[in-house]
Amino acid sequence: MKNIFCIGIGLIGGSFAIDIKNYNPEAVVYGISRKDATLEKALELDLIDKKATLDDLENADLVIVSIPVDATVKLLPTILDKISDNTLVIDAGSTKGAICKVVEHHKRRRNFLACHPIAGTENSGPTAAISGLYKGKTNIICEVEKTTFKLQEKALELFRAIGMRIRYMDAVSHDKHIAYVSHLSHISSFMLGKTVLEKEKNERDIFDMAGSGFASTVRLAKSSPAMWTPIFNQNKENVIESLEEYISNLQQFKELMQKDNFSEIFNEMENTNYIKQILNGIK
Amino acid sequence: MKNIFCIGIGLIGGSFAIDIKNYNPEAVVYGISRKDATLEKALELDLIDKKATLDDLENADLVIVSIPVDATVKLLPTILDKISDNTLVIDAGSTKGAICKVVEHHKRRRNFLACHPIAGTENSGPTAAISGLYKGKTNIICEVEKTTFKLQEKALELFRAIGMRIRYMDAVSHDKHIAYVSHLSHISSFMLGKTVLEKEKNERDIFDMAGSGFASTVRLAKSSPAMWTPIFNQNKENVIESLEEYISNLQQFKELMQKDNFSEIFNEMENTNYIKQILNGIK
Repeated sequence: MKNIFCIGIGLIGGSFAIDIKNYNPEAVVYGISRKDATLEKALELDLIDKKATLDDLENADLVIVSIPVDATVKLLPTILDKISDNTLVIDAGSTKGAICKVVEHHKRRRNFLACHPIAGTENSGPTAAISGLYKGKTNIICEVEKTTFKLQEKALELFRAIGMRIRYMDAVSHDKHIAYVSHLSHISSFMLGKTVLEKEKNERDIFDMAGSGFASTVRLAKSSPAMWTPIFNQNKENVIESLEEYISNLQQFKELMQKDNFSEIFNEMENTNYIKQILNGIK
Repeated sequence: MKNIFCIGIGLIGGSFAIDIKNYNPEAVVYGISRKDATLEKALELDLIDKKATLDDLENADLVIVSIPVDATVKLLPTILDKISDNTLVIDAGSTKGAICKVVEHHKRRRNFLACHPIAGTENSGPTAAISGLYKGKTNIICEVEKTTFKLQEKALELFRAIGMRIRYMDAVSHDKHIAYVSHLSHISSFMLGKTVLEKEKNERDIFDMAGSGFASTVRLAKSSPAMWTPIFNQNKENVIESLEEYISNLQQFKELMQKDNFSEIFNEMENTNYIKQILNGIK
């Protein structure tokens, strides 16, 4: 795959560009973005070789779509309209249901592979792109059977070359589980940040008191609202369900405290310590 | 200060022992613990030189109390009973109100300096102790005026030698603010861990889908229940207040989602992004 088109060149797209060029120095990476400033920055950082537009997609061997998920839903049919018969299109969205749905009946559905590389950080934009971001990370591929086999093979070769582990899943299950293991974490972190900022906004030096534990827990509250708002929108039902269960657990914890039932508070924490075994498996 | 007694030799006490020996090779570190296994492990790890009991405290130049805060409240008066007139006693508890209160009228109150080094991690026990834990970390000292000046000076010399920054605060303010910037983070993390474990307990391989964001947000759910239960108990009122505000913010976020008010969801997140500036200041 020689002509690589990155639509969106932030953390995800930019890091793909870096790894692809390391793995295949022959590759020419074209950048497409709504904002010219992003393209200029991506050129300056050597993430891309050239600027391009959607009309150039007919020359693409690979198109990587890594833009907010609402933009993907809008743009993906047009992208498939413009590619050639041999082009592979992958996305990197944190929701999969709406994205798969919008191209369900597209005549080039078989050129598209729905992906979710679990490799985000709280940083965004071209300057956040790094080499080796995907090494050892999981890439969840949805509805693999809908992509033509030859293009699946090309995609897998790329993912293997940059060190990713592959998991296959249907889009409905993906969206349900990812609400718990990713989307809910972001809300818990944003609201924790909000609660503390509201309380302490007039006492800024109070944050001298905050340690690495606080920093770790609110880290995700640095995430991009432009990226996360459409994710919550597209995965609304699953996210609300997870949020209700979270609120109910917090409420119950509070009630145990109010009743001075600290032996049960101890048990709650001890049972949850089981998360240690699980975290040991996460890179 | 030659004879150093560590009451409790876990992450906090053990790391103090390591740094003190590095800074003053003449120091002899004695360990006191309820559990002989902890002392044996601490000897094996070279954290302490000798085992000791409370009756040896009359020979202490410095006593570092780093045990759960309920144990500190129980034991601190006895410790002050047993020391000599020139002994400095410091604690490291994450609450300060109850600890200061229990020795308020003790005849050796002036030998005690109430401290809270903001240096904990989710790990505990002697094996968690590390060199340099305190470098660049904040140590909050409460009611400094109640400690005799000569012993304050000794304490400050030690804290400076191991690289700590000092902040002075009254115990009531400490407990109020620390509920927000530390205690609440632990509950949010424990309950997030609980919510996800409850949902996904029968689908363990789902955690392949979890990335570094989830890991960061639930990291504190690995913390020791034996340490945290008495903290929540002693700081009950402040913690409940912070928890109520947190739950209310989560509830409001959920309602915005239910009403499809995603422009306000965007604003909430964008406003909270301000946390970036604050996190930049936290080591």
